[in-house]
Amino acid sequence: MRMALFADLYELTMAQAYQAERMDQLAVFELAFREMPRNRNYIVAAGFEDVADFLTTFHFTAGELDYLRGRGEFSEEFLKSLGCLRFTGDVYAVPEGTVVFPNEPMVQVIAPILEAQLVETFIVNQVHFQSLAVSKAARIVTAAQGRTVVDFGSRRSPGIDAAVKVARATYLAGGDGTSNVLAGKICGIPIFGTMAHSYIQAHDEEFASFESFAALYPETTLLVDTYDTLEGVRKVIELSRKLGERFHVQAVRLDSGDLGNLAAHTRRMLDEAGLRSVKIFASSGLDEYKIQDLVNSAAPIDAFGVGTKLAVVADAPELDMAYKLVEYSGKGRLKLSTRKLLYPGRKQVFRQVENGQMVRDVIGRFDERLPGKPLLQPLLLNGQPITPINLKESRKRLQRELEQLPHHFHKLEPVSAPYPVSFSEHLRADLNAIRRRLGFSST
Amino acid sequence: MRMALFADLYELTMAQAYQAERMDQLAVFELAFREMPRNRNYIVAAGFEDVADFLTTFHFTAGELDYLRGRGEFSEEFLKSLGCLRFTGDVYAVPEGTVVFPNEPMVQVIAPILEAQLVETFIVNQVHFQSLAVSKAARIVTAAQGRTVVDFGSRRSPGIDAAVKVARATYLAGGDGTSNVLAGKICGIPIFGTMAHSYIQAHDEEFASFESFAALYPETTLLVDTYDTLEGVRKVIELSRKLGERFHVQAVRLDSGDLGNLAAHTRRMLDEAGLRSVKIFASSGLDEYKIQDLVNSAAPIDAFGVGTKLAVVADAPELDMAYKLVEYSGKGRLKLSTRKLLYPGRKQVFRQVENGQMVRDVIGRFDERLPGKPLLQPLLLNGQPITPINLKESRKRLQRELEQLPHHFHKLEPVSAPYPVSFSEHLRADLNAIRRRLGFSST
Repeated sequence: MRMALFADLYELTMAQAYQAERMDQLAVFELAFREMPRNRNYIVAAGFEDVADFLTTFHFTAGELDYLRGRGEFSEEFLKSLGCLRFTGDVYAVPEGTVVFPNEPMVQVIAPILEAQLVETFIVNQVHFQSLAVSKAARIVTAAQGRTVVDFGSRRSPGIDAAVKVARATYLAGGDGTSNVLAGKICGIPIFGTMAHSYIQAHDEEFASFESFAALYPETTLLVDTYDTLEGVRKVIELSRKLGERFHVQAVRLDSGDLGNLAAHTRRMLDEAGLRSVKIFASSGLDEYKIQDLVNSAAPIDAFGVGTKLAVVADAPELDMAYKLVEYSGKGRLKLSTRKLLYPGRKQVFRQVENGQMVRDVIGRFDERLPGKPLLQPLLLNGQPITPINLKESRKRLQRELEQLPHHFHKLEPVSAPYPVSFSEHLRADLNAIRRRLGFSST
Repeated sequence: MRMALFADLYELTMAQAYQAERMDQLAVFELAFREMPRNRNYIVAAGFEDVADFLTTFHFTAGELDYLRGRGEFSEEFLKSLGCLRFTGDVYAVPEGTVVFPNEPMVQVIAPILEAQLVETFIVNQVHFQSLAVSKAARIVTAAQGRTVVDFGSRRSPGIDAAVKVARATYLAGGDGTSNVLAGKICGIPIFGTMAHSYIQAHDEEFASFESFAALYPETTLLVDTYDTLEGVRKVIELSRKLGERFHVQAVRLDSGDLGNLAAHTRRMLDEAGLRSVKIFASSGLDEYKIQDLVNSAAPIDAFGVGTKLAVVADAPELDMAYKLVEYSGKGRLKLSTRKLLYPGRKQVFRQVENGQMVRDVIGRFDERLPGKPLLQPLLLNGQPITPINLKESRKRLQRELEQLPHHFHKLEPVSAPYPVSFSEHLRADLNAIRRRLGFSST
């Protein structure tokens, strides 16, 4: 489904209009979100690997052109030019894994306006969801304070693309891996598996199912809550007695009930049976808030399987993100729609770090020389990829970024004062100049 | 990405265990959700076209087998059998577009346990999200009370699969179509497009942009809020005066601000200018609640473009849905985990309709003969599709279903008493018999 037709219809009708009007100058589009979601203190930028892949292979197939032809609103001349169209522009993006804030361009596309317009929907779709997913996963990993975190969300993910992207996001955020085998293969990340209730149910006896599974997979994790959690734990202990030195079960999994309480009971029972090395894996409705509660109450849980709440990014499923024209044919462009004010011109984000801690970002003109590190870096030049995205590097970068992010932004609760981001004087002057040119008063 | 490896790892490890233990008997798995989300009075079942396609083409590629081999935990014998594996089972499902309630099996898979286990993740992933999306879209269409509803959500959808499925869901729910061109092509549904702010911004004058676009697309919709909404409307009126009989613009689109107020002003201005036939299209943060408010306040809006809130199913993004083993080798199976009680045995749902209105559902044994219409019907038999899913038929079915659903369940607000669903006496007896067999007290 990664096809050029993954676009909103108006991008194609506008493209034909640009061609008819011979509007073939360079446009600059910038992708940013306008407001921090209520439950977030930062957003992690991600999704640029898919953007780069999409743009470098961008083309319309004969089947796509036939479909468009059938609508009757596109000229043969336009369809013919679509057939030859490739993406030839430059794309700048913040490095994947960078922490970003409202109004900061995460992606900047500089291309003939027709090309830049046609790729809008795909770019927004991927960067929006993947950034949200990594941001959520980063909170979960933070809450787990070094304990293992595994993505279990594929079955409740919104579609198969989302499932693979959530798995990748979990790993990028510092999680340990995913249960999704395809995601493991595609993204090259560790995969994890325990056992399901169905396996136990299919056996006439719970004990027999544990024994069989451990015979085949000696270092497995046994799921103990199918009938009665602590009874299940007792059967694991019974198995350890039966197997003696051949017992290598690594963990038990709790998947229902009061996880903190059950984990405490389970730990005590395992320890008393001399099974101190058997770990406790918990799952069932977990998110960063529940994990924080469990960790704060010293629940003896070693690993968390996180599913639905991560997969649907339950508490912040959307960013007010838009891909906006800021420059065309060398002139800054703006938009004054209510609550959707847009600053004109191609921008750069300058991040100032002092004593290893981020202190402020200033959004300036792209060609300004302001203090701080410029975040936007080339991803593609002339349609060709510059720096391939590497998931492991993105993961390390995010870890470094989070070390530089002042501590209170790591909290799950909203901070009282947002991270300071301002617009440079030059940019504000540009905004007012264009407002005046368009006949509106300056701000 | 519709591949056999789209599975959780434990499905593969369990599959190998089933094979090692020669557990090759028929299993019955049922997919149902346990609780109605707080903001829903009904759920619409959907996603079975993807389930049928996945199962009828199910196979492991050489690349997938190589990946599994590389893990070192799968025997060559098992990998070889995976290489030959096809899905040979029977699948029953409620017809797409059927209204369903908690605990009602939406899909029932009857197959050798290894096959039935391996397809779990894909089935849940698709039915879960698609059912949620159609349910959300149905509320939006209900709130719009006959006005046009178009999916504008692709850019904020969680991934590209979700975007296409949300477009399909909107149409299934009685909406008019989508802005996503690929979804239009794949699903055979109408596509809609207006124009974006970028087109207007790229022109030096708003009026010039309207004039150019209308010259190429005489029956277009013009977006009026780029700088000042009512000023934009004035320019549309100016264009109508300039073009005279050549003016055929069909609508203006409002995309920011107080939509009700702006629509009223816009309508008055258009009417006074003799442009009664020019419709008003509204978008920007819409969902069923906002649409209901606009409709109730008689805002003169003719069409709604619904984006983010639909795409992420904002107020009910998850169902507590699970694919559970209920029978293996002819014996009913259950599960007693806290708050996850499962009734054993293959089931049927009997829906009783009186005077054209649904009155109650009874979940019974599959072979019971209870009053009412049995909802579960064959989708595949022996791995072969029986009744191809047809989107237009699903759409009509949902419309009929909603006519049969008592009126108060259509409200956006939660009903005080849920729709009555009970378990048959036989099923309750079966549950208690198995509880006793497993050594637990009966309920």
